[in-house]
Amino acid sequence: MDLIVANNELKAKAFLQEIEGKTPLFIATLATTETGKIPGLSAAGANPDFTDFTPPADAELLLLGKCKSIQGVPITPDGIPTPALITASALHLADIPALIVNGGVKVKPQIPYINVNGSPGRDIRTGDSVDNVEEVIDRAKVVGEHLAKASEYLVIGESVPGGTTTALGVLAALNVNAQGKVSSTLPDNPHNLKAEVVAVGLKAAAQKFGNFKGDPIKAISAVGDPMMAAVAGLVIGGSRQTPVLMAGGTQMTAVLAVINALEPKALCNVAVGTTRWVAKDKSSDICGIVNQFCEVPIIAADLDFGSSKYPGLQIYETGLVKEGVGAGGASIAAMAKTGGAVDKQILLKEIERNYASLMQIK
Amino acid sequence: MDLIVANNELKAKAFLQEIEGKTPLFIATLATTETGKIPGLSAAGANPDFTDFTPPADAELLLLGKCKSIQGVPITPDGIPTPALITASALHLADIPALIVNGGVKVKPQIPYINVNGSPGRDIRTGDSVDNVEEVIDRAKVVGEHLAKASEYLVIGESVPGGTTTALGVLAALNVNAQGKVSSTLPDNPHNLKAEVVAVGLKAAAQKFGNFKGDPIKAISAVGDPMMAAVAGLVIGGSRQTPVLMAGGTQMTAVLAVINALEPKALCNVAVGTTRWVAKDKSSDICGIVNQFCEVPIIAADLDFGSSKYPGLQIYETGLVKEGVGAGGASIAAMAKTGGAVDKQILLKEIERNYASLMQIK
Repeated sequence: MDLIVANNELKAKAFLQEIEGKTPLFIATLATTETGKIPGLSAAGANPDFTDFTPPADAELLLLGKCKSIQGVPITPDGIPTPALITASALHLADIPALIVNGGVKVKPQIPYINVNGSPGRDIRTGDSVDNVEEVIDRAKVVGEHLAKASEYLVIGESVPGGTTTALGVLAALNVNAQGKVSSTLPDNPHNLKAEVVAVGLKAAAQKFGNFKGDPIKAISAVGDPMMAAVAGLVIGGSRQTPVLMAGGTQMTAVLAVINALEPKALCNVAVGTTRWVAKDKSSDICGIVNQFCEVPIIAADLDFGSSKYPGLQIYETGLVKEGVGAGGASIAAMAKTGGAVDKQILLKEIERNYASLMQIK
Repeated sequence: MDLIVANNELKAKAFLQEIEGKTPLFIATLATTETGKIPGLSAAGANPDFTDFTPPADAELLLLGKCKSIQGVPITPDGIPTPALITASALHLADIPALIVNGGVKVKPQIPYINVNGSPGRDIRTGDSVDNVEEVIDRAKVVGEHLAKASEYLVIGESVPGGTTTALGVLAALNVNAQGKVSSTLPDNPHNLKAEVVAVGLKAAAQKFGNFKGDPIKAISAVGDPMMAAVAGLVIGGSRQTPVLMAGGTQMTAVLAVINALEPKALCNVAVGTTRWVAKDKSSDICGIVNQFCEVPIIAADLDFGSSKYPGLQIYETGLVKEGVGAGGASIAAMAKTGGAVDKQILLKEIERNYASLMQIK
């Protein structure tokens, strides 16, 4: 299979063996925040205000094969299409079902979704970014447990613009050194801007929460985003029943740190699934974050758009976008379900087909 | 297994053979309406206004094993406990996962649920009882299809107080003769009151909608309830992938009539699962309704509370409550999953255990 094991090779192989031939349920967890609108931080939308529409439109693309909340598909300011295109193509090729969990979004998707009582996030510079964290975790645990009982395993992805900055915030709050290690949708990773935003948030949070270090609920409440609470709950609940593939890049490391603080044994049944673009990224270090506190294996789909006939896809090779909406994990699941019959070439063809159709390219 | 086949014996046996040993996903679909508050119509709540709390409390009981929106569990005016107690016991014994779909409720359950954009129903005497029917059906189809892909089969139940009156309304609107044939939570079935309410509603609807006969979307919009739209969509979407057991009494016959008008081939993959109390009810006639327009098999769990040590459960044998929250279908699914190892005695013991614990009976 077209996969790269980024760390913990034996555990990764055991995980892959366990999921081979199986049909997972893919869950995309949505959230939006005001943090994602800080200029220069995220490319998950044509402009900052547009980031409110990216998660719902991504979700619509997964469930309906097209967006309803916007025309076309979400794009970066440079016009590069959303990684949900990869996810949707992978799920379609391998006939993998999907559900949407609303972690907390400003614009509701025009499709069915699971409500866990989350609200959109504020700017983390307030030090008070997410409401209702504990309740969302508890509700998401219940969903995760029931969905895992109904399925062979779970793949859980996310769509939250600005999510690597909130990840840096929560990792810092939980004493994990992620400075310079989180990834970016932008080719020039704005590490300094992220660090500055996080520093302001942590300072404000310390005034509000006192000593919140080591408390994952407070860490998310202070400098996190609503996706984290929902995904942490889903993974904790789900991993009691089946394996769980956390589908995402460095954003998922913050959720791992939260789970590690809440219920570390959940991590025995978990792997991270991402893309080659994240695993091999020189401007971030996903293994360097994870290996500080746990031994969860990291597996990457060896996607390569270098040979694509479309410049809008080729450009993924320059480090734009890299990951999102569970693109890497969905690709891994499609390969695993089909025993490798879905490979990176077949996947690229399907992505190109969908891209051309959705962007109306002749 | 402790089952009764009420009609279409061969199809019923084929359906049972297909589900034996399999793990379904149970979906409880909630709705509330102002119709349910018409005095004398429903016993699904200690008093009419309390019916708003019955569906959310039922859903909490299924997912958490206890209610959060109310103390204890929902009861009839006589203190008889909700049939969700049967459902929760059956699902627990056979380790069957459950999800909640919010078809449209006034009081939101304090648990995670799937949102299909439904709203609570008005009084059908307005002839304009449900908003947004087509959209809810479309969204529910998407959910049904994805959940069915993830599961071995689906069991779909409902909790909507006053639902047999709205069922009579929609059946009448679709030219099915159900007068005197719908069931009741009350021991004295108020057929005349129901017919009167429906007649007022149909008259008002004819003024609003003109000729709405034979149009199931308009029929639900005029004199139905929000559960019907959600369940119709779930069944249509789900039955494309797996068998679907519609878990309920005569309320489900209205949904069958809607599906029969929208996408009749969906019914090839469907059975109705109910209780002996409905199947053998002398004051209603579920087969007499269904056999007018389709050949869907009806299977009943042969529940018998006559030997219970608790008067509150024994009283089910007098015809109070009879069915609800998919009690019959969940019981059938528990028996089928365990190849009959869960039988009516074991089920009664578990129901008694939960009843005593939840009602704090020593």
